[in-house]
Amino acid sequence: MFNDFKLAEGRPVYLQIKDYMKRLIVQGAIQADRRLPATRELAALLGVGRGTIIAAYAELEADGFAYTVQGKGSFATSVKPQSGSGGEEPEDAGRIGWEDRISDYALMAEELDLMKRGIRASKGTISFTSIAPDEKLFDLDSVKRAFLDRMSMEGHVLLNYGYAKGYKPLIDYLLDYMARKGVDTRNQDMLITSGFTEGFDLVLSTVKKVSGRVLCENPTHNTAIKNLKLHGFQIRGVPMEADGLNLEELKEALDEGDYDLVYLVPSYHNPTGTVMSLRKRLELMELMNRRGIPVIEDGFNEELRYSGSHVAPLAALGSAEGGVVYIGSFSKVLFPGLRVGWVLGDRRLIGVLESVKRARSIHTSTLDQSLLYQYLHNGNLEKYLRRARAEYKRKYELTLACCREKVPFSSLSGDGGLHLFMTFEPGLNTRDLLAACQQRGVIFTPGDSFFTDGGGQNTLRLGFSRVSDENIRRGVSIIGEEAKRLLKNR
Amino acid sequence: MFNDFKLAEGRPVYLQIKDYMKRLIVQGAIQADRRLPATRELAALLGVGRGTIIAAYAELEADGFAYTVQGKGSFATSVKPQSGSGGEEPEDAGRIGWEDRISDYALMAEELDLMKRGIRASKGTISFTSIAPDEKLFDLDSVKRAFLDRMSMEGHVLLNYGYAKGYKPLIDYLLDYMARKGVDTRNQDMLITSGFTEGFDLVLSTVKKVSGRVLCENPTHNTAIKNLKLHGFQIRGVPMEADGLNLEELKEALDEGDYDLVYLVPSYHNPTGTVMSLRKRLELMELMNRRGIPVIEDGFNEELRYSGSHVAPLAALGSAEGGVVYIGSFSKVLFPGLRVGWVLGDRRLIGVLESVKRARSIHTSTLDQSLLYQYLHNGNLEKYLRRARAEYKRKYELTLACCREKVPFSSLSGDGGLHLFMTFEPGLNTRDLLAACQQRGVIFTPGDSFFTDGGGQNTLRLGFSRVSDENIRRGVSIIGEEAKRLLKNR
Repeated sequence: MFNDFKLAEGRPVYLQIKDYMKRLIVQGAIQADRRLPATRELAALLGVGRGTIIAAYAELEADGFAYTVQGKGSFATSVKPQSGSGGEEPEDAGRIGWEDRISDYALMAEELDLMKRGIRASKGTISFTSIAPDEKLFDLDSVKRAFLDRMSMEGHVLLNYGYAKGYKPLIDYLLDYMARKGVDTRNQDMLITSGFTEGFDLVLSTVKKVSGRVLCENPTHNTAIKNLKLHGFQIRGVPMEADGLNLEELKEALDEGDYDLVYLVPSYHNPTGTVMSLRKRLELMELMNRRGIPVIEDGFNEELRYSGSHVAPLAALGSAEGGVVYIGSFSKVLFPGLRVGWVLGDRRLIGVLESVKRARSIHTSTLDQSLLYQYLHNGNLEKYLRRARAEYKRKYELTLACCREKVPFSSLSGDGGLHLFMTFEPGLNTRDLLAACQQRGVIFTPGDSFFTDGGGQNTLRLGFSRVSDENIRRGVSIIGEEAKRLLKNR
Repeated sequence: MFNDFKLAEGRPVYLQIKDYMKRLIVQGAIQADRRLPATRELAALLGVGRGTIIAAYAELEADGFAYTVQGKGSFATSVKPQSGSGGEEPEDAGRIGWEDRISDYALMAEELDLMKRGIRASKGTISFTSIAPDEKLFDLDSVKRAFLDRMSMEGHVLLNYGYAKGYKPLIDYLLDYMARKGVDTRNQDMLITSGFTEGFDLVLSTVKKVSGRVLCENPTHNTAIKNLKLHGFQIRGVPMEADGLNLEELKEALDEGDYDLVYLVPSYHNPTGTVMSLRKRLELMELMNRRGIPVIEDGFNEELRYSGSHVAPLAALGSAEGGVVYIGSFSKVLFPGLRVGWVLGDRRLIGVLESVKRARSIHTSTLDQSLLYQYLHNGNLEKYLRRARAEYKRKYELTLACCREKVPFSSLSGDGGLHLFMTFEPGLNTRDLLAACQQRGVIFTPGDSFFTDGGGQNTLRLGFSRVSDENIRRGVSIIGEEAKRLLKNR
């Protein structure tokens, strides 16, 4: 005892001694009602003045961890409540087990948590699993500038409580931003959220379950599948084609029964990377309007156009007022570390969402919101996007070329964005392929987790945004070699 | 048309013209398949070169909002999906009404949303409703320093994705911080959340409902009451005394049946401002351990000790391992605009909470977490607390003196923190008092919303942290005068 005491800088010595003694008492190293070392003794032992120890003991006493007996010194308080009245207690009386106190919802969240059971990339591994932006593109100076600008203008306001709905200048900016995408925002309103996922979760909590059924693309964003399941929705996936979901299959699905909503990722769809054509968007919206089914549009990666045309979002094409709930985020485009997203939709819906948001987390970080606003306001987005698009386009073309040259896929999709999607002959299981590649230091995301119907065992997603050119070449070669080997060995 | 077009700085002119035209098409000002103005004509009208208009039309076409007919010019695309096949459609076919699509949960969140039905303070009103910190105390320079320090060290990392569990350096700091409060953290783990409220909401989602009943203090934190109700828990309140909840009543409540958990605010309790005594804390923990009921401890304002002793948190006193889930936050102490809180508890529980957090919102803003960490690491907390405590203590004493002199309360509580709580004779309804005071430009929080049993009509909470000395004097006088008038008129 006392020989592991070390002084840190910055905190008064008597408080550090108090903390140290408190820990000894709490952890049972000094037992209840045992005398603490005499002040003179401890002072000598720790090499501090006696006054320091006296001050430390006084603080310890004020906090309730010690008491004085006149003429006898200081004693440790009994800080462990009695755990019963004798020896009849079962052995684990002092333990509250959580295993059987966890809700089914939470257990399901854990079971569906891919990050927990995901493949860990050891050092040196070439990882194609991420579709996060490449941080080397981040213009830190503009970010610092935006922070300092805004803090100088209204730092005191930013650091105090804000509003559940969001930071007003950012809302105004984003409403205008959405109008520029062609959305008629006149009867709409906006809620700022901590990223896309929170927005989606809030919307799913707010939509009433009538049929309890949801339509979506198959495959689709795996986090969305997880959240739909967590909210108890039954999922009906509609197969994808090169220009978006198969409308004939969609009509069939619509004839099967009612749906509470449709969830769609029309641009640079995750995981297939395809962009839904304007014709399909219009026809789709007509079908949804006619049946009165609300559409949740995931604005994922819409900004990352670097080839082809920028098709208008569904929110710009819905004639039915209130029919589209658009959820946007700059996480894949700008900075995921700032958790900011937005929900644009019918006024009544946004009004309720505001209350749900307030109940759940008061409001989104004002610092994140104001920094993002100022960054946008300072005109950095266009400049940043020009650089980012050029860089991602280059990587996209390189990855595409490598895949075409080296990988024996049966089909490949991806019109841009940060990833490609490959399908192999039905017999090739990409989890086997992953195991083989991992041996050689290369990992990717097997496609099955994106499928709503248990399919996709022969597919994979290849995220290239954070992989160097050299590693793209090496990694894709290895995937190609292993795929060929597996195909041959069948 | 075209006369409301205004050029903004920063964005290329042809894109601004595209945006403008797009809006006209989307909003129906230019109808489907109508010809757009000839490029020469529009160029003259807007005072730009013809090439600019040609570029704008090309972009419009690429986005799908216009098409060219050879030799005839550009035409607006039909961006409204057909809403049916004739005149048989009902009038509101083009409208998706949200009123009957909102879940009961969300409607309840709206109904219990006090901010939405709260008293709005018009300009010049003296408001005692807030218990947020006084932003005049914020040391902005230290905040800027912390941001720049951290950004320089690892800006690229901070702006990309982080971890659901939280920012590692902050977790380590806070584990040590809790150990210094006397908590044995050896078998515990920590999750960083976006503030207390999110932490509480996550925990309530994760605890299995068995009896569906929860014990808490009566009155208690109104946001906690809201969240317990939203999660479907039945609430049993235990009356408060000057040194914490009434233990005899607690025992009676325990004899009534089982409880899934206890929610407590032991320090500077909201709304009564009392600090639970060490004796009561120990006895309470003994009761809970013996029955195996987990305790959720709200660390609210624990840091704001400026009188009396700093009693150890329940988490430091629980002999039952895993028995206390501590939820902390610096929102009332430092900066609420940064949304950062923490949940400290049993490893198994935190493991599941991590998955629930990831499903709900991926992770807490890394910017907020890293800024807070660096601010703490730079040694600012102690300095800031010294200033803040001195200032709040002064205001507390002033408010207390004013209340004692002017207000005909029958009892008053509040051992520190940022607010006082007053109880009047049973006949005085503080909502009537509020109406009278509001006429004279003074508002406060009627106490009834903090009660679990519909009581408290004769109570009020007085938050003084953001009120100037002069306004404290004036405001309390007015409350006193109106209370006397109401009492006389009965």
